[in-house]
Amino acid sequence: MKEVRDFYLLLHPRPAYVIGSGRWGERVNFMAASWVSPVGEEPPSLIVALGKESLTLELIEIYGEFTVNVIPISLVEELYYVGSRSGRDEDKSRVFKAERGEKVSAPIVKDSLGVLECKLMNEVELGDVKLVIGEVLSAKADERFFNERTGWDFKKISIPLHNWGRGFFKVGEFVMAKGKG
Amino acid sequence: MKEVRDFYLLLHPRPAYVIGSGRWGERVNFMAASWVSPVGEEPPSLIVALGKESLTLELIEIYGEFTVNVIPISLVEELYYVGSRSGRDEDKSRVFKAERGEKVSAPIVKDSLGVLECKLMNEVELGDVKLVIGEVLSAKADERFFNERTGWDFKKISIPLHNWGRGFFKVGEFVMAKGKG
Repeated sequence: MKEVRDFYLLLHPRPAYVIGSGRWGERVNFMAASWVSPVGEEPPSLIVALGKESLTLELIEIYGEFTVNVIPISLVEELYYVGSRSGRDEDKSRVFKAERGEKVSAPIVKDSLGVLECKLMNEVELGDVKLVIGEVLSAKADERFFNERTGWDFKKISIPLHNWGRGFFKVGEFVMAKGKG
Repeated sequence: MKEVRDFYLLLHPRPAYVIGSGRWGERVNFMAASWVSPVGEEPPSLIVALGKESLTLELIEIYGEFTVNVIPISLVEELYYVGSRSGRDEDKSRVFKAERGEKVSAPIVKDSLGVLECKLMNEVELGDVKLVIGEVLSAKADERFFNERTGWDFKKISIPLHNWGRGFFKVGEFVMAKGKG
C-alpha cells in the first residue's frame, strides 16, 4: 500500500447534502457538504464539519439553526454550484426553489427528497474547521421514495455521492448480507 | 413529505468501515461503523460516533489509538458480522486477517483497500454516544485501486455503503457535474 496525501479521499464517495442557513426573509444561504454524519439517536443528532471562514458557519452561529437537505442526483449541477462558490462572494439564495423551515427559520430546498431541521447544540474547534453538532428537530421524507424500515428506494431515485471535485457517483446495486455465523 | 421516526435513515446509505481497536498482542477487536466522517485537513482528522457501552470505545479510551479500514464489498459478510455482535460477548479478533498498525499498536485489517491509523485527539459526550475525534497519523491505499487525484477506482472495486440492517449498496454509476454557471 502507498501513503496518500489527501487522507479523506480514502473515505469518499459520501452522500452530499445541501445545508440551508440564515433566516427566511432576512438572509438565505446554501452550501454543499459531504462531511456530515448522523451521530446519535438520543438526542437525535448529526454533525457537519465547516471551514472556519465559511458564511454558512457564521449564519449558523448567528441564528442557531440550519437545515440538511437530501437532494436527488438530478440536482447535481445546483449542488456543485453551491459547493464551489462562497456566499461571501455571491448570493446563492436563489439557486434552489426554497421556503422557510417549519421548526426553524432557516431555509429548506423545496425539491428535496428529505429535510432535517436542526438546532445548533454544540460546536467543537478543530484546527481549520468547526464541528457543528445539531439536534434534529424534524426529519421528513418524500413518501414516494422512502420506506420507514429500509430508507430510500434506490430503484426509483438516487442521491449524489461526492467523489472529488466535479465527480459524483450514483448509488449502485443492492447487496444483502446473509448474516450467518 | 411525511415525518420519519429514524432520522438517520434519511442520511444513508453511507460507506461502512471496520474500526480496529485494542493493542496488537494483547487485545484486538473489530467493529463496523458508518457514522464516520472526515472533518478536517489541518490537522488531518475524522470522527466516529460510538455507543457509550461499546467495547470499541472502551479500548480506544484505554489505548488512545484506533484504525479505520476501508474494505471491499466482497468482505460484506465479515463486516456485517463484526457490526452485529459485541466484543463483550465474543472474541472478534479473528474475523479478519489482521496485523499490527505501523504508526499505532491497534490492529489493521490485512485485506483492506485502505487503512487510516488514528490517535485519539478528543471526545465529545452526546447523550447515548461519544464522538471520538481522531488525528490521522497515516493514510494508505492499495495503489491498484486508488488514484491520488480522484480516489478509488470504482470501475475495478466497490465498497459497502450501509443501508439498513443486512442491506448494503455498491457504488454505482459516475456522474460529472458540468460546473457551468
